[in-house]
Amino acid sequence: MPPRPRPIRLYESSIPSGNVYKIALLMALLGIRCETATLDVMATPSETRRPAFLSKNPNGRIPLLELDDGSFLAESGAILYYLAQGTAYLPEEALERARVLQWMFFEQYSHEPYIAVMKFWTFWGGLHKKTPQELATLKDRGQSALAVMDKHLEGRDFFVGDGLTIADIALYAYTHTAHLTGFDLGAVPSVRRWLERVRGAPGHVPIAAGPGAPDYDATRE
Amino acid sequence: MPPRPRPIRLYESSIPSGNVYKIALLMALLGIRCETATLDVMATPSETRRPAFLSKNPNGRIPLLELDDGSFLAESGAILYYLAQGTAYLPEEALERARVLQWMFFEQYSHEPYIAVMKFWTFWGGLHKKTPQELATLKDRGQSALAVMDKHLEGRDFFVGDGLTIADIALYAYTHTAHLTGFDLGAVPSVRRWLERVRGAPGHVPIAAGPGAPDYDATRE
Repeated sequence: MPPRPRPIRLYESSIPSGNVYKIALLMALLGIRCETATLDVMATPSETRRPAFLSKNPNGRIPLLELDDGSFLAESGAILYYLAQGTAYLPEEALERARVLQWMFFEQYSHEPYIAVMKFWTFWGGLHKKTPQELATLKDRGQSALAVMDKHLEGRDFFVGDGLTIADIALYAYTHTAHLTGFDLGAVPSVRRWLERVRGAPGHVPIAAGPGAPDYDATRE
Repeated sequence: MPPRPRPIRLYESSIPSGNVYKIALLMALLGIRCETATLDVMATPSETRRPAFLSKNPNGRIPLLELDDGSFLAESGAILYYLAQGTAYLPEEALERARVLQWMFFEQYSHEPYIAVMKFWTFWGGLHKKTPQELATLKDRGQSALAVMDKHLEGRDFFVGDGLTIADIALYAYTHTAHLTGFDLGAVPSVRRWLERVRGAPGHVPIAAGPGAPDYDATRE
């Protein structure tokens, strides 16, 4: 089998993205380094929606990974999976591996669309355009996702098995800043303990701040 | 390594679900049979949100797979992955496998929340409560997802590699009925040809109709 193509460039955004942070955190834990290319997502239109980038990712989203075979890989979950294959962050056993993916799909469907979207509107604009009902829906569904996580983490150190996996990394990215936009981490004590566990992993790096971003470091509990 | 736990029961819904259909289609292609348990999602509260089911899946969603080791696996993408491991529907090679997941994450994040949600509101109620703006957003984003698929499928028979994978199955489920709720499949000719290819796979089964469902068979193009 030929060698696996290596990452040469990570496309990220001009404002801190939890979805990019997932990749940056896993790369830090694995000691993988590559170039970054930053796209101005506050421009009109966003640089992610212009032809130069759409030719790389027709879905117009970051993160996007460029590989040394000239191809690209999109979707944070797929990039995490690619980089984690053959490492301790992705179990080999069939059912454990499926459970890791279960939590990664949960994150993209039941967690990120509420918690990440609330963060975007709060810090990068547009919150004032939302109706009270829209905000209540985001708040309720995001808090419900945290409750599902809390229930699962009762008596567990990590989401799957005994160690940190890409399921934890995927869920950590937007959970660890959720209290900044009104989600109640006090109501989910097992989540809080798990956040400390992920934060304490050797090689952990914090999310980048960036211009206009909240001071994440100041919010450590 | 101990034998992999086997599926014994698939939890599905009283109205046809594309997410359940993905599993049913893969099981048909693989010749896997198991019991089904049907939950009344139109009851108040939905049977998926009652304690008996929440004890099996705290996220309160179908499909859910029960295994013969007494455990459960949630999320259609994770169930597809679990069942497809070791079969032709999931490539072994690292990058190909990640590309399959890329399209499955795309489906859950950029496709299903628009195309499946429009279907739910249209056929199972609630469409009249939506504002014109909400409906336009669903329509635009769903149609954009179809355009991204169309672009990728130009000159390709399947989403990844040369054969049918769980990426195709995941995307087929809600795409093949999208024209019933106003999405324009005429605008995406490569998608239409791919739909025929998936429909023609040996062992293919159609989505179940169910009470109140549109007559899917009558809508074949």
